[in-house]
Amino acid sequence: MNEKTYTQHGGDIYTEGLLKGNKILDFSANINFLGTPKSLESAVKEAMKSITRYPDIEYRRLKKTIADYLHIDNDKLKIIPGNGAAEIIDLAVSLFKSMCIVVPSFSEYERCAHIHGCQVTYSELKDDMTFDYEDILERLKTCEALLIGNPNNPNGFIIDKEKFMEIIDYCDKNDKTIIIDEAFIEFVGDEKTSFIHESSRYECLLLIRAVTKFFALPGIRLGYGITANEGLADKIRERQLPWTVNSFAETTAEHIYRDSEYIRKSINANKDEREYLKRQLVQLPAISKVYDGRANFLLCKLNNITAEQMFNYCLKEHILIRKCDNYRKLDKYFIRLAVKSRSDNNKLINVLRKANL
Amino acid sequence: MNEKTYTQHGGDIYTEGLLKGNKILDFSANINFLGTPKSLESAVKEAMKSITRYPDIEYRRLKKTIADYLHIDNDKLKIIPGNGAAEIIDLAVSLFKSMCIVVPSFSEYERCAHIHGCQVTYSELKDDMTFDYEDILERLKTCEALLIGNPNNPNGFIIDKEKFMEIIDYCDKNDKTIIIDEAFIEFVGDEKTSFIHESSRYECLLLIRAVTKFFALPGIRLGYGITANEGLADKIRERQLPWTVNSFAETTAEHIYRDSEYIRKSINANKDEREYLKRQLVQLPAISKVYDGRANFLLCKLNNITAEQMFNYCLKEHILIRKCDNYRKLDKYFIRLAVKSRSDNNKLINVLRKANL
Repeated sequence: MNEKTYTQHGGDIYTEGLLKGNKILDFSANINFLGTPKSLESAVKEAMKSITRYPDIEYRRLKKTIADYLHIDNDKLKIIPGNGAAEIIDLAVSLFKSMCIVVPSFSEYERCAHIHGCQVTYSELKDDMTFDYEDILERLKTCEALLIGNPNNPNGFIIDKEKFMEIIDYCDKNDKTIIIDEAFIEFVGDEKTSFIHESSRYECLLLIRAVTKFFALPGIRLGYGITANEGLADKIRERQLPWTVNSFAETTAEHIYRDSEYIRKSINANKDEREYLKRQLVQLPAISKVYDGRANFLLCKLNNITAEQMFNYCLKEHILIRKCDNYRKLDKYFIRLAVKSRSDNNKLINVLRKANL
Repeated sequence: MNEKTYTQHGGDIYTEGLLKGNKILDFSANINFLGTPKSLESAVKEAMKSITRYPDIEYRRLKKTIADYLHIDNDKLKIIPGNGAAEIIDLAVSLFKSMCIVVPSFSEYERCAHIHGCQVTYSELKDDMTFDYEDILERLKTCEALLIGNPNNPNGFIIDKEKFMEIIDYCDKNDKTIIIDEAFIEFVGDEKTSFIHESSRYECLLLIRAVTKFFALPGIRLGYGITANEGLADKIRERQLPWTVNSFAETTAEHIYRDSEYIRKSINANKDEREYLKRQLVQLPAISKVYDGRANFLLCKLNNITAEQMFNYCLKEHILIRKCDNYRKLDKYFIRLAVKSRSDNNKLINVLRKANL
């Protein structure tokens, strides 16, 4: 993995020069297509009133809001707010000398490990994109921690809890840490798929969440870690700089996390559109497989066309898609598509149909 | 320096419980008393429009705005935006195995060095609070870098350029790095006191700036590093996480840096009030010396009363001051006072007078 690979992410409409002139339809960034909740406006107004003050260095009110949203006990489970999930992932990874990363997955996992000189072993998804639980368990025997997405990006699959329990048990008994990135978990629409309740029972777990994807707020930078392991929480906080969460992010949670109507609507709309998009995509000759992801994006395998070719064709039509050739295990025949509104999804489908793709 | 010391900063009105109930007059945080520029409102409106997108991962527009503000060539001097100056200080410190830190100074310098296992040697200010240039030069012979404030916090003194040139020459010839924290430089009101122009001539220099203090925006989290040393800039960026600067911070510079009326007013008002406050303070029996700082705060030496006693008395009167006993070299007889508006400054003076302090 070279330097360039590290910096490739979805949604880089700036490098593509796409902000100038024509409007672009961005299927490369996995952001809730409903946009930000209305309640953001009141959060911003509140933040403006306190912007001349430093945020609370301990983020007490923010932590309380997050605890309420997750129905957890703030005293039992430690919450560590950060400058996006990215900061918490980085701080967590920095604590370990060796780590098993499930791949393909978010490239920042690997970049953080590289920066901190953490030795990495990779557990590849099976060919059907399901987790290889036996392989994960085997690899954990020679490293200190596991990093896994739930749902995992770019395939969108969630962890099978029954099969995963053996891994949790093993880590709990052998002082290993499991970092579960749940950045997309709200889209699944089923609280039982989250490991939030297991977190209070097993000290080996560190969950990472963010408002970025589900609340369509990548610009606000708010993520957090959750763990019952006080020692682990302390180690992360010791390495964290003061005031990494800005005032807007600090006040936002309180407003958006109480917006139950937006939350309900978002779950339903993203689910409906994901299933709709999938039904359309599988009918296209250029797409040989659409994986059965549970988040707001779909991993697709192409047929007789490379991701690069499809990317270039779509770009000409002012549509940005995510090539997946820079993911481990995935080759040049994979793309990832965000779930968007019905009319946007239809635009994409029509553009692909037009070229007999 | 213990754990508690690390976390002591000015402006922690949350821990003191001061947000509840009574209004507090905060002389402990060094924020421009004029408050945020009006132009912030348009910046926030603009940010709201793009909050559902990730910020530009390379912050191109932001860098251009900063370069224009500083009248520098964006291609020649590299600008590295960060999540407050704190992030850039941390990334810079992380690059060195050994470092000379001028003290007393901002406690984060030392905390960062501690986190990254950087060996520190301290060059103490002289008793009159001026820099000990000979001592700095001597200490630099056994370490890789120097970290110094201009103006330095908590005394507010600026670097004597003539005397400092020998140090720059030495570092330039011997591959050592000088990190100059100019978080308060705008308050001096004299561009020639900044090392921005030396930065383009000497690759050993790394300047750190922020909007926090002068633009009264501690909540927005925007700072940056500036250096002509491309290798140094690359090393910092490689260690930096993506999107550490939020969308509000990203758009803000463009609006506030062009607000020349606010900038002019702020320089004059803070200078006038600093001199006024100083004239009043020197007349008080409890204050034996007010140091001749050039920023928006004043370091004072007390007479017959400890900082703790004065702090407690002021707190009862709803005024928060900064005890300086957790600074290296300073003992329990030092306090730091922010420069505030005429009426606020008078309130402080009257409260002290009332108790014959």
